[in-house]
Amino acid sequence: MARDERGVTAQSEDFSAWYNEVVFKAELVDRGPVRGTMVIRPYGYRIWELLQADIDRRIKETGHVNAYFPLLIPQSYLEREAEHVEGFAPELAVVTHAGGKELDEPLVVRPTSETVIGEMMSKWISSYRDLPMLLNQWANIVRWEMRPRMLLRTTEFLWQEGHTAHADEADAMRETMLALDLYADVASEIAAMPVVAGEKTAGERFPGARRTFTVEGMMRDGRVIMTHGDDKGLVLPPLLAPHQVVIVPIGRGDQAGQVLQSATDLAGRLRRAGIRTHVDNRPHLSPGFKFNDWEMRGVPIRLELGPRDLADGSALMSTRLGEGKTAVSLDSAPAILERELAAFQDMLLQRATEFRDSHTRTVDTWEQFVGAVKTGWALAFHCGSPECEDDIKAETSATPRCIPSDGLPEEGLCVRCNLPSAYGTRLIFGRAY
Amino acid sequence: MARDERGVTAQSEDFSAWYNEVVFKAELVDRGPVRGTMVIRPYGYRIWELLQADIDRRIKETGHVNAYFPLLIPQSYLEREAEHVEGFAPELAVVTHAGGKELDEPLVVRPTSETVIGEMMSKWISSYRDLPMLLNQWANIVRWEMRPRMLLRTTEFLWQEGHTAHADEADAMRETMLALDLYADVASEIAAMPVVAGEKTAGERFPGARRTFTVEGMMRDGRVIMTHGDDKGLVLPPLLAPHQVVIVPIGRGDQAGQVLQSATDLAGRLRRAGIRTHVDNRPHLSPGFKFNDWEMRGVPIRLELGPRDLADGSALMSTRLGEGKTAVSLDSAPAILERELAAFQDMLLQRATEFRDSHTRTVDTWEQFVGAVKTGWALAFHCGSPECEDDIKAETSATPRCIPSDGLPEEGLCVRCNLPSAYGTRLIFGRAY
Repeated sequence: MARDERGVTAQSEDFSAWYNEVVFKAELVDRGPVRGTMVIRPYGYRIWELLQADIDRRIKETGHVNAYFPLLIPQSYLEREAEHVEGFAPELAVVTHAGGKELDEPLVVRPTSETVIGEMMSKWISSYRDLPMLLNQWANIVRWEMRPRMLLRTTEFLWQEGHTAHADEADAMRETMLALDLYADVASEIAAMPVVAGEKTAGERFPGARRTFTVEGMMRDGRVIMTHGDDKGLVLPPLLAPHQVVIVPIGRGDQAGQVLQSATDLAGRLRRAGIRTHVDNRPHLSPGFKFNDWEMRGVPIRLELGPRDLADGSALMSTRLGEGKTAVSLDSAPAILERELAAFQDMLLQRATEFRDSHTRTVDTWEQFVGAVKTGWALAFHCGSPECEDDIKAETSATPRCIPSDGLPEEGLCVRCNLPSAYGTRLIFGRAY
Repeated sequence: MARDERGVTAQSEDFSAWYNEVVFKAELVDRGPVRGTMVIRPYGYRIWELLQADIDRRIKETGHVNAYFPLLIPQSYLEREAEHVEGFAPELAVVTHAGGKELDEPLVVRPTSETVIGEMMSKWISSYRDLPMLLNQWANIVRWEMRPRMLLRTTEFLWQEGHTAHADEADAMRETMLALDLYADVASEIAAMPVVAGEKTAGERFPGARRTFTVEGMMRDGRVIMTHGDDKGLVLPPLLAPHQVVIVPIGRGDQAGQVLQSATDLAGRLRRAGIRTHVDNRPHLSPGFKFNDWEMRGVPIRLELGPRDLADGSALMSTRLGEGKTAVSLDSAPAILERELAAFQDMLLQRATEFRDSHTRTVDTWEQFVGAVKTGWALAFHCGSPECEDDIKAETSATPRCIPSDGLPEEGLCVRCNLPSAYGTRLIFGRAY
């Protein structure tokens, strides 16, 4: 990485350019050798690990068990369900040769494990006593993307898929709502991202599904990590930050060794208090460079430690979104930083909620609708016709994000065609990223 | 699963039949829809998760960081190193079509990530300051197996691969020895499997590698879990057991409810003490069936709890390899079981070590060699010639497992061709599974 190309385009100027620069410069990802694939670099992968560990714990608490199903699936499996194959066919990567020979039947690299998990479940379930069967899988999947985009839409990605079998529809619905709550909790509690839980309209359903439910955050379906960024770069919620605190030792010549030793001691104390702490001891880089670097990479809290601070028994603290610096006593640093990190996490959620709410408008006319979806979400009535959905998308790039579960019961006329609304509440419309 | 087909072939009668029955009946794995692929069922996957968590913690403690590299690799990458491609070509699964079109260049499903990690590292390392770079990846890989075998040799498997870059060869060797120790520690401390660390001979090296190191356990390269089995089925080391303790409540009619409640309370107390505990409350199965079932599935400790035990304030404990049953006071059950589980773990390692040592012979003649490798390992001198290795393999199916790191310095004549030995110590020979 060329260290002098560190500055990033202002987010406010060009969000897309900012995004593309930040994901690479923050060392979250790099391009893979095949078009549309990505390498998840250690800094990005650590965020994934923290998110995964939290979700995995919650999934297990609800009685699900993890299993692993094969990557390669006979092509015929995907052809069993007409809608399923129609949805995935254009995105499939197909293995035609293996072991030096052409295969009798081509294999697809899983775009989801649904078909094979369904097949195995029907084999494993012999009576009602085996129900409910609550399975979860962490795996990589491949969908050949025509317009790939780093992190958001890559040809291969890591995900989690839950598949369950139930004695009756009521139990299946209970499970679905439980899962929906789980995702919503993870988004708000861990990623500091407020979301709306709800159901997808017919036109937006998962291929082959009878009903599809979703949690929708403003911007970026499920990828949480860019929500909080600003002109300086990334802003990471403490619960997902690889380094929650970075200590930058400052001191030259004779003092350098003593300062570094104190920084290392402090880091040890913070780590024992459960705070993920990194000491930036790169001797060839200036403190100013390091400050910018860690700001760009989204570290919630920075501590500067120089000879004068040491003499005072303190360090200078800056938070990623705060102004100025505060002296923190070294003795009470673990307790203070624990509080600061919790406050930072809360503040991010509050800030994102305010942002979302101020970019959401309840609209009743087409003109208002067009204006609202340019900058955020529109809450509007819709007639329920897929053709009308298509018209809206063609003109504004906006699609129904969901029928919100906690939407107020309300009737009205479709914002586009004036026919009566079909859902008993307003839909959320927004532009898909 | 047909519950009345529960018995397994005696291990002593037909190891291979025993193995094939146990992996399925213990619900470790099932066959995938594509030849040579497997489904890792929840019971088997939990073992993997426990092993993975332990290895991952150790890897991170040594300063490695996890990352993730793409599944699909351009075919040309594997052709860069002649030896590398020669080693893997017959095992590759090749994607020729994607997104509904034929690809300009075929992609291989990674048989290892070596080539792509090497490429990325050379991009990321710009000076000695970036060294050492210590990367690790958890991923699925695909090698098209001609003779697949469940768990041991499947077309797709989950693994961990470490790839590191160093300033000089000495540092690289230190890293290699560190990794070798790590694997050896995991094998003995977690899987209760004694191993020998050492180097591979030239003929057994990883394709394209200058040197290859290994840890060798008696039987089954790296798959640990079958080492401890017996005629009744699986025996799991407590540290890898999904259920360390299974409680079987015994009671009919009016008493059933009370017994189940007490079993659930006991399980809660054991879990709070960190013991993975399962209550088998399947009402339609007899206690005798459950005892056999959990023995077959390798659970280290079983507790029976009936009305009479409850009246006594105790439960009846059986260990998977012990004789008879012992009354355990319910009050002190957590402390007692913690001790029993630790003792069981230690005993398994001791038992496996004794088994290995009693099946290892130091041999100096070809006749002794042939006899020794029929039942275990032979410690023998070898001339170092790959042709001589081939002859030995052709006649006995035995190959050099490794040049043991802690082998006594000793010189002698090749057990096969009588030329002087090449390694300064005896090699371990054994039949590959």
